[in-house]
Amino acid sequence: MHPADDTFAAALVEQLPADTLRRAEPRYLEEPRGKWRGLSQWVALPRTTQEVSTILKACNAARVGVVPYGGGTGLVAGQVSTDGAALILSLERMTAIMGVYPQENAAVVQAGAILADVQAAAAEADRLFPLSLASEGSARIGGLLSTNAGGVNTLRYGNARDQVLGLEAVLPDGQIWNGLKRLRKDNTGYDLRHLLMGAEGTLGVITTAALKLQPRPAVTGTALLTVASPQAALDLLSLARTQIGDGISAFELMHRMGFDFLRETLPDIRQPWESPPEWAVLIELGLGRDQSPQEALETLFAESFEAGLVSDGLIAQSAQQAQDFWNIREHIPEGNKRIGSISSQDISLPLSAIPEFIATAGPALAKLGDFRINCFGHVGDGNLHYNVFPAQGRSRTDYNVSDAVKTCVHDLTDSFGGSVSAEHGLGRLKVGDLERYGDPAKLAAMRAIKAALDPNGIMNPGAVLSS
Amino acid sequence: MHPADDTFAAALVEQLPADTLRRAEPRYLEEPRGKWRGLSQWVALPRTTQEVSTILKACNAARVGVVPYGGGTGLVAGQVSTDGAALILSLERMTAIMGVYPQENAAVVQAGAILADVQAAAAEADRLFPLSLASEGSARIGGLLSTNAGGVNTLRYGNARDQVLGLEAVLPDGQIWNGLKRLRKDNTGYDLRHLLMGAEGTLGVITTAALKLQPRPAVTGTALLTVASPQAALDLLSLARTQIGDGISAFELMHRMGFDFLRETLPDIRQPWESPPEWAVLIELGLGRDQSPQEALETLFAESFEAGLVSDGLIAQSAQQAQDFWNIREHIPEGNKRIGSISSQDISLPLSAIPEFIATAGPALAKLGDFRINCFGHVGDGNLHYNVFPAQGRSRTDYNVSDAVKTCVHDLTDSFGGSVSAEHGLGRLKVGDLERYGDPAKLAAMRAIKAALDPNGIMNPGAVLSS
Repeated sequence: MHPADDTFAAALVEQLPADTLRRAEPRYLEEPRGKWRGLSQWVALPRTTQEVSTILKACNAARVGVVPYGGGTGLVAGQVSTDGAALILSLERMTAIMGVYPQENAAVVQAGAILADVQAAAAEADRLFPLSLASEGSARIGGLLSTNAGGVNTLRYGNARDQVLGLEAVLPDGQIWNGLKRLRKDNTGYDLRHLLMGAEGTLGVITTAALKLQPRPAVTGTALLTVASPQAALDLLSLARTQIGDGISAFELMHRMGFDFLRETLPDIRQPWESPPEWAVLIELGLGRDQSPQEALETLFAESFEAGLVSDGLIAQSAQQAQDFWNIREHIPEGNKRIGSISSQDISLPLSAIPEFIATAGPALAKLGDFRINCFGHVGDGNLHYNVFPAQGRSRTDYNVSDAVKTCVHDLTDSFGGSVSAEHGLGRLKVGDLERYGDPAKLAAMRAIKAALDPNGIMNPGAVLSS
Repeated sequence: MHPADDTFAAALVEQLPADTLRRAEPRYLEEPRGKWRGLSQWVALPRTTQEVSTILKACNAARVGVVPYGGGTGLVAGQVSTDGAALILSLERMTAIMGVYPQENAAVVQAGAILADVQAAAAEADRLFPLSLASEGSARIGGLLSTNAGGVNTLRYGNARDQVLGLEAVLPDGQIWNGLKRLRKDNTGYDLRHLLMGAEGTLGVITTAALKLQPRPAVTGTALLTVASPQAALDLLSLARTQIGDGISAFELMHRMGFDFLRETLPDIRQPWESPPEWAVLIELGLGRDQSPQEALETLFAESFEAGLVSDGLIAQSAQQAQDFWNIREHIPEGNKRIGSISSQDISLPLSAIPEFIATAGPALAKLGDFRINCFGHVGDGNLHYNVFPAQGRSRTDYNVSDAVKTCVHDLTDSFGGSVSAEHGLGRLKVGDLERYGDPAKLAAMRAIKAALDPNGIMNPGAVLSS
C-alpha cells in the first residue's frame, strides 16, 4: 500500500475540480474517544458520485488506501488511518435531500446528509425517519449506514440497515453501482445493500441512499418506571408488548449508578426522585391518532404494579416532563465520561440471558478489583452498555486491569451467545475481537469477499479485517 | 461440472448413514408451473448439518453440482437441475423447531421446517411468525429464506430476510458457519445472513435459522372496500396509516377481472356483490388488546368515503366473513390458472408510480393484441402480479406473443424504476432478465462474490447467474 502523499495528491488533483483535495486538518485525524490519531495528509471532498468514482479509480490504480469519512462520530476508530497515510474521503459536500416521497414513505438522500436534517425533512412531510442516536446532529447517513448504527428506536424500527430501500455506491475499482430503487420487494440477485452496510467502508463508498420513512406516531407518551430487577424489566416489556402491540418506540434500562454519577457530575440534570432506584426503565410509546398513550401507560403501570414488576413510576404529564426523563437517559454517557471509566463495552445478549449475565458479570469482575459498574442501555433490543469505573474515591490510574476487565466482559458475553460489538461496529478498535470471537467460517468468507471486491485492499485498510 | 451419477453416488454413500442417498423420484424433478423438468438422478436427504457439510465437501471435491431443495414450491425453477444432473439436496428431514423463546420474541428452527409448522409453534407461545403466503403448508424455511420470500404481510413486517436474527449455513467448501445468534444488534463484520438470503442456494445451504417472532395482534379486523382507482387505493393506504399507524397487516388490491375469473371458474367462492367493482381493496388490521379494529375500520370507511376514495365497503362482522374475504383474494391465482394466462409477471414498483404504470401498461399491451388483464397484488408494498390473458372466447394457443408481452411489461416496469422480480426471485427462469435489466456493476460484484465463495461453481449451477 502506498501513502496518499504529495506526489499522489499532485497527480489526483489534475483529474478533479478545483479545491476537491485539501491538506487534512486535525479534525480528520481525531476520533471522539481521543485514543487514536490518524496519519493522513490529504482529504478529498468530492461534490458528486462521479468524483468519488474518479478518486477511487486513481487510488486503486496507485494502490493508495482510502478512508471514507462521514460525521467522524464513530467510537471504534473506523474513520482514522493509523497504520498508513490513507486518503480521507469525506462526503461532507454531498448533503442533498434529493427527494421526499410521503405517499411511498420514502426519501432519497446523499451520503453526506446529517441525520438530524434527514429527520427534519421527513417531519416536514409528516413522516418519521426513525433512526435516532446521541450524535444525530453531526453523524452523516453514509457513515450511519456503513456502520449499521443502532440507537434508541431499534426495538421498534430496527437498525440502520433496516431503514434502507436502495443504495448507490462506488465500488473499490471505481465502478458506480446504481441500486437506488425505492422498492419494498426486489429479489433480483445478491443483496449488495446489506453487504455494504456493516462493512464500515471496507468494500466501497455509499454515495446515496433511498430510505424508508414511517408514519409519524400521532401521539406519544413517556414514563419512567422503577423496576425490581432486570428480569422485571423484561417481564414488563413482555406485558407492554401484549398490551400495546407495536407501539413501543423505546425501552431503556438504567441503573442507580448512572443516576449517582449524574448527581455528582451534572447536578443540573433534573432527577425526579430523592433517592434513586436501583433499576429504572424509560418507556416511550408512539401511537395512532385515535389511541391514548396516557391511558395505555396507566393500564400498564397498574398491571405491572399488581404483578410486582414495578414499584413506583411517573407518567410524563407534559412534553417538558417527557424531555426531562429523556434528558436523564441521554446524559448518562456524559456522566460516565466525567467519572472516567476503566473499560466501556457495547455488547448485546439474547434478551432472556440478560438477567443472568448481569448477575454473573459483577461477581466475576469483583475478582479483578473493586469497581463501580454502570450497566444501562437499549434493553428492549438486548443492547447493554457495560461500563466499569474505579471505586469511590479512587482514580482509574490506580488500576492496571483495563484489558483484563474487557476480556472478562467479552468472554462472558460470548459464553451467553452475545455480541462484543452490538451497535458501534469493529472499526480498528475491535479487529482483534473479531479474530478472537468470530466464527472461523465467517471470517474466511469475509476475507474471500474482501479479496474479490477489493483485490488491492485500498478500502479503509486496517478496519474490520487486519490488513 | 460432473454429473451426480451412479459412480459419484456410490462413493458418497460410503461417507453417510444408510438411506441418506436415494434415486430422485419425479417430484424432485418437477416445478409448480410445469414448464421445467430436472435431470437429476440422485437426491440426498441429510439428517444433520454435519451430513450437509459432508455432502458439500464431496461435491466440491468432485466438481459435482448441488441443488438445495426446500418445499419445491418456487415459481422460477430454482429447485430443478436442468442443464446438468446435479445432486438434489433436500432439507426435508431437518424439520425440528429447536426452541421457542417467547420473552425474546425468537425461535430457532431447522431449514426443513414447514412454514405453517413454524407459524403454529409461534402461536402456541402466543407469538406471531408473520411470514405468510399461499404455499405456507408446504414451503420450508430454508427455501423461503434463500429466496427471500414475500407474501401478504410484507407491508407491516417486511420480507423473509427481515424475519431473521441468525443463521447456520454450510458454505460451498463444506465449512459450517455458525451464525445462529438470537441478537437484535450485532455489528461484527460483513452480514453473511443477508448475502445468503436471496442468493437462492448459489452461495451455500442454510441449515438452521434463528427467527424473529412478533407480539400476536390481540384483535384483528378485515374489510373489503370498493375504491375508485389504484390512486384512490394508495390514498386510502396513506389515510389508514395516519389513522391507524403500524396496525395495518395487509393491504391488497384486486381488479374486477379477478372476480370475473373466479365467478367463471370457481363459482363456489362466495363473492359479496352482485356486480363486482372495478377495483377493490382488502385491508386487514391487527391491533393491541385495548384497541378496536371495528371502530378503526368504521372511522377509516367514513373518512375515505367522505374524501371520495371509497364508494362502498364491507367490514367483516365475523371470523367467517373475514375468511370469506380472504378466500376471494387467495383464490385469484387459481382462477387465473384455470383461465390460462399468456404471460404472468411478478413485478414491483415505487408506490407512487403504480397508477401511471397501470394506466400505461394496458394501452401498450393493446398494441400487441386483444387481451384481458388481471392486475392485483400486495399493493401496500408495491408488488403487483400483472397477468395477461386471451380475450373472451379465445384461447392462449391463438396467441404467439408471450415473449413480447413479457418484454413489454418488464421494459415498462424497468422504466418506472421497478423490479422484474419482486418476490419470486430469479431462479433459472429470470437469469436473462438479470442480465438485461440488472446494473452492470452489481452483476460484476455478484460474479466476483460467487467466484470467491464457490470457486468450483457447484452451488445451484444455472440459477441466478448463468453458469
